[in-house]
Amino acid sequence: MGKSDLKLLGLRASPFVNRVQFALNLKSLDYEFITENLPNKSELLLKSNPIHKKIPVLIHGDKPICESLVIVQYIDELWSDGPSILPADPYDRAIARFWAAYIDDKWFPALRQFRYSEGESRGELLEKLVEGVALLEDAFVKSCSKGKSFFGGENVGFLDLAFGCHLGWLRAVETIANVKILDKTKAPALAEWTERFTSHKAVKGTLPEPEELVNHHNKMMQAKAAAASQASK
Amino acid sequence: MGKSDLKLLGLRASPFVNRVQFALNLKSLDYEFITENLPNKSELLLKSNPIHKKIPVLIHGDKPICESLVIVQYIDELWSDGPSILPADPYDRAIARFWAAYIDDKWFPALRQFRYSEGESRGELLEKLVEGVALLEDAFVKSCSKGKSFFGGENVGFLDLAFGCHLGWLRAVETIANVKILDKTKAPALAEWTERFTSHKAVKGTLPEPEELVNHHNKMMQAKAAAASQASK
Repeated sequence: MGKSDLKLLGLRASPFVNRVQFALNLKSLDYEFITENLPNKSELLLKSNPIHKKIPVLIHGDKPICESLVIVQYIDELWSDGPSILPADPYDRAIARFWAAYIDDKWFPALRQFRYSEGESRGELLEKLVEGVALLEDAFVKSCSKGKSFFGGENVGFLDLAFGCHLGWLRAVETIANVKILDKTKAPALAEWTERFTSHKAVKGTLPEPEELVNHHNKMMQAKAAAASQASK
Repeated sequence: MGKSDLKLLGLRASPFVNRVQFALNLKSLDYEFITENLPNKSELLLKSNPIHKKIPVLIHGDKPICESLVIVQYIDELWSDGPSILPADPYDRAIARFWAAYIDDKWFPALRQFRYSEGESRGELLEKLVEGVALLEDAFVKSCSKGKSFFGGENVGFLDLAFGCHLGWLRAVETIANVKILDKTKAPALAEWTERFTSHKAVKGTLPEPEELVNHHNKMMQAKAAAASQASK
């Protein structure tokens, strides 16, 4: 697959973009990464995702595909001769899709809110995040009952990508807020999985280091404060 | 498949439950329908969907599957010898999944809010709903450019189920609020599709009639008012 056939509109600091990158890496597909400037979105992004105007968008030839989990499934189904991302068994697939939806609809929104939260709401959000990790630890232990390394079994799969893409921000938020969310005393299996996942060749070098994301966060907060101070003048 | 192998925990008035029923009907699968009383959820529901505690849940043998789109894909993948629900082509599948997510994440929440809304927010919500129908009309016309009958082509498919399950409440809400959301002058192709979809053998008799849902709504509002008046005494 030539680089010109696959374009990924994204941003290095976006976990949903990273998720697609991991899938492309797993299938050994080359792609052109086009960095978006979110305050000033490109014509290509607006034309390719007119409904949500969001990254990531994968453009395959002239066809745009939007929404990270939809893109990952497209990649898995089209390049089915590469390593499988979705499990083979329909029930295992259903379980992987269930937890991926839980992560996107419930867990990640709490992580994002927590990152910007102050005061009373913090404790409640932290509780939700830790509870989510406990649920995922339980799901992982169950899927790992036969001594498997990943949610996907011996190899990185759908749910590994779905949760693993958030590990950079998870660690960054732990640093920013000086808290523990994924704690090895409370989620020992997931803590070990974290080590395996982040050192996997499809992930290492693509998932941003927590320090980079902390810097990204600090710059955003400074820009926000500067804009607010400008507005109040 | 014997009745005892498949149990569906649901409620006749839930579009997400209807969605699963259509999929089971398409595959000619018998199932036992277990009606849930939502203010007093059954032990079986709480045990089968401990995370969201929501209907629908399909129980296959002793395995629970939750979330309507996950269940529909499970049914399609496990009983793959029946009529296909997801399209065969990976890009068509991606498009169907994209719009199904749009309906669940953006359009349906606006329909539910509109049903209970009063005052200023109504106009804005109505605009959102009509705009959504226009987007779906456009998507349908594109997929129908070869004169197809359904989003899925010649047969009812994933996106037909995803949007079609809301037609009962759509018509009910139009009656309750005395507005037009899916109007045949503005969405002529979708208006014709509505006729075809609601008279399909997998749908007719399962999708509740709008009148039934209007009655359901009125009863709920009366119960709410009675509870509020009781509380204020």
